[in-house]
Amino acid sequence: MVGGGQLARMTHEAGIPLGIKFKLLSDTPQDSAAQVVSEVVIGDHRDLDTLRDFARGCDVITFDHEHVPTEHLRALEADGIPVRPGPDALVHAQDKGVMRAKLDEIGVPSPRHRIVKDPADAAAFAREVSGAQRLDEGRWPGDGRAGGFPVILKTVRGGYDGKGVWFVRSEEEARDPFLAGVPVLAEEKVDFVRELAANIVRSPHGQAVAYPVVESRQVDGVCDTVIAPAPDLDPELAGQAQQLALRVAKELGVVGHLAVELFETTDGRILVNELAMRPHNSGHWTQDGAVTSQFANHVRAVLDLPLGDPRPRAKWTVMCNVLGGDYPDMYAAYLHCMARDPQLKIHMYGKDVKPGRKVGHVNTYGDDLDDVLERARHAAGYLRGTIVE
Amino acid sequence: MVGGGQLARMTHEAGIPLGIKFKLLSDTPQDSAAQVVSEVVIGDHRDLDTLRDFARGCDVITFDHEHVPTEHLRALEADGIPVRPGPDALVHAQDKGVMRAKLDEIGVPSPRHRIVKDPADAAAFAREVSGAQRLDEGRWPGDGRAGGFPVILKTVRGGYDGKGVWFVRSEEEARDPFLAGVPVLAEEKVDFVRELAANIVRSPHGQAVAYPVVESRQVDGVCDTVIAPAPDLDPELAGQAQQLALRVAKELGVVGHLAVELFETTDGRILVNELAMRPHNSGHWTQDGAVTSQFANHVRAVLDLPLGDPRPRAKWTVMCNVLGGDYPDMYAAYLHCMARDPQLKIHMYGKDVKPGRKVGHVNTYGDDLDDVLERARHAAGYLRGTIVE
Repeated sequence: MVGGGQLARMTHEAGIPLGIKFKLLSDTPQDSAAQVVSEVVIGDHRDLDTLRDFARGCDVITFDHEHVPTEHLRALEADGIPVRPGPDALVHAQDKGVMRAKLDEIGVPSPRHRIVKDPADAAAFAREVSGAQRLDEGRWPGDGRAGGFPVILKTVRGGYDGKGVWFVRSEEEARDPFLAGVPVLAEEKVDFVRELAANIVRSPHGQAVAYPVVESRQVDGVCDTVIAPAPDLDPELAGQAQQLALRVAKELGVVGHLAVELFETTDGRILVNELAMRPHNSGHWTQDGAVTSQFANHVRAVLDLPLGDPRPRAKWTVMCNVLGGDYPDMYAAYLHCMARDPQLKIHMYGKDVKPGRKVGHVNTYGDDLDDVLERARHAAGYLRGTIVE
Repeated sequence: MVGGGQLARMTHEAGIPLGIKFKLLSDTPQDSAAQVVSEVVIGDHRDLDTLRDFARGCDVITFDHEHVPTEHLRALEADGIPVRPGPDALVHAQDKGVMRAKLDEIGVPSPRHRIVKDPADAAAFAREVSGAQRLDEGRWPGDGRAGGFPVILKTVRGGYDGKGVWFVRSEEEARDPFLAGVPVLAEEKVDFVRELAANIVRSPHGQAVAYPVVESRQVDGVCDTVIAPAPDLDPELAGQAQQLALRVAKELGVVGHLAVELFETTDGRILVNELAMRPHNSGHWTQDGAVTSQFANHVRAVLDLPLGDPRPRAKWTVMCNVLGGDYPDMYAAYLHCMARDPQLKIHMYGKDVKPGRKVGHVNTYGDDLDDVLERARHAAGYLRGTIVE
C-alpha cells in the first residue's frame, strides 16, 4: 500500500486476519501506518524509481491517497504490477476536471460546472448559473449577491479536506485559486439539505457490494459526523444513490472502495460532489457497525477475493472524528471516555496532536439514534478537550 | 508482549485502534506476530538479559504464553517494570501443582488430585480415587479397569494442547510422565458431559468483566469448536461458573484475561480443569461475537484502562479452529469459503501449514445455532482440506 496515513493503518489492521503480507511505502517512519506495519519502505511516492523498487515482489499495489502521479501508475502497470484501482479509474479521483467530464458523459448528475480560465471567467460562470437557476427554478440557492456569486472554485488536482476549495463571493475573491497554476473548476453553489455518501466496493471480476447510504455532516469543510444509515432518507432516493455509485464504479472501472459524496438538494435530487477511490472517512462507521468493514472489503477487492457482507450490524451507527485540540496527550482522556461508555469504540491514528488535525475517530452504535449520537459526540469532544465533564 | 504467537498477533491487531506503541519479543522474525508488528526484538524469553533489554523503555509487559521462568518475572518486577499478570498470579498458570493447591485452599472445586512420585504411587492414587468414588457415588466414571485406572497424569510445567498430559490405564503406562524429571500431578478421570470455559478480564485496580460461559469441544486434546453461549446451560450453573472465575482472578491477583477451563460433570457440578492467564482459544469468538474482544479487553486491563462491554453481539457465535492439513497453501481456499458465506470471518495466523497444527480459526454468528455451526465447520473443514465441496 502506498501512503502511510490512517487509511493504510486501518487497512493493515483489517488485513491481519487474512494472513497476507502487507508492505507499506511511507514518507517517514513516524507516519500513522508505519508505526504498526512490519515491512515499511521509506520513500517518496512521487518518485518513479522509488515506486518501482517498492513494487518489486508485490502481487498488487493499492493506495492510501490519490497523490501518486497518474503516469507513474501507468509505468508500474507496464512493468506488469497490478495497480488497483488502476490509473484509468484513479485519474477520476485525482483530477476533478476529468471526473466532471466523465460524469457528464455517462449522465450522472453533478452541480453545474465548467473549467474557468481566470477570475473574469469565474464571474461569467457565476452569472450563467445564477441566471439559469433563476430562470429554471424561480429562486437563488445562496445569499443572492450581485452578479450571480457565490460559486465554488476548485483546483482540479491536489485538494482534500477543504484544501484546494474556495467559496468565492466576488471576482476579487476569485484570484487565489489561480495562483497555483493548476486548472480551476467552477461549480455552482448547490442548495442542499444535507450531504450523503454512497459507499460501494467493487472487485476486478465485477462483483460489487453497496453499504447503506450515510449522512455526512461537515464542519469548516472537514467531516465531523457520519450517521449510518442516513436518517429519514427516502428509500427510493437511497436506492438511486446506491445504483448511481455502482454505475460510476462500473463505468470508471473502479476496483476497491469507492466513496461517492453526494448533495441531497432541497428539491429532492442527488448530485455528485466528490469521488474517492480508497477507504474513506464516510465509511469508518463500518469498522464497528457493518458485518464487513470498508477496510476488509477494500483488501478483498484489491486481492480479487469474494466480497464480504456490507449490511449493518446495528440499527444506528455514528462516527465522529476526533480533531486535535489544546491537549497534546489524548491517552489520559481514555479513562473517562471508556469508563463512561463501555461500548464506545475508539480508533486513534498515532498522530501528533495539532489543533484541527484529524487524529482519530470514535464509533458508537445502538437502537436509539439520539443516544448513539450523544455518546459519539461526547467522546469526540472529550478527547479533543471541548467537553470537560 | 513476550512471545510471537497468534495471541500476540491478535493482541497487536486489537491494540492498533488505541494508538499505543506495541513492542514484541519473538523467537524468530517468522513468528506469527513478528510478521505484522513494527517493533520486534528477536530473542529467547528464557534468557534474563534478553528480557531485561527488551523491557527497557516499556511501560508494562504482558505475555503470549506462560513459558517465561517465574524468577525472571520477579527480576523484571524488581527492576521496576510492571508485569501483568504478575509472577505471583502467573505461577498458577505455569505450575499445575501450585494451581491445584491454591484452588483447594480457596475452596474452588477441582478433580481429585495429588502429586505422585512414581508409577507405583500413581497406581495407589488410582485405587484411592476409584474406591472413594465407588463408595460415594456407587459407580465408576470410566471403563472400570482393574486397580482403579484410568487416571490422568500431567507434568506440572510445560504442557499445552494435550502435550504433557497422559491418559493412563495401568502402572506400566504410567512410566512416561516421569521421564522428564518434572513433578507429576495425578488427577481422577472426571465423568463429564462437556467442557465449558468461563472467561473474565480483570484490571489492576480490580474492575472485572465476565464473558458468557462457552462450550468448548476438543478433538484429540485440541480445541476444535467453541459455542457461545454454551447451549442449554442451566443459568444458575452459568452464573456459578462466572462467579468462580471472578473469584479465582481476585484470589490469585490475576490481571488481564483469565480463561478457566471447566468440566460440567454428569451430576451437574463444575470442576476446574485448567487456567490460562492470557487471551485464550476459548475466547476467539469474541473478536466477531462480543462488543469488546478478549484481545481488546486484555490490552485495556494490562494498561489499567476501564474495561469494555463483554456482552455478545449475536444470539449465537461459533468458533472453529483451522488445523493444518495436506494443502500447504490455504489462500486458494478463501475463494470458495468467502463466496459461499459472505458473513464468514477468517482469522489466519501466517503460520506454515503442518498437519494438525493450529494455523487459524473462523468465526460465524447468527440466530440459528445449527446454521451457525454448519457454516463454521464447513469453512474450517474446507480450509483444512477435509471438506472439498
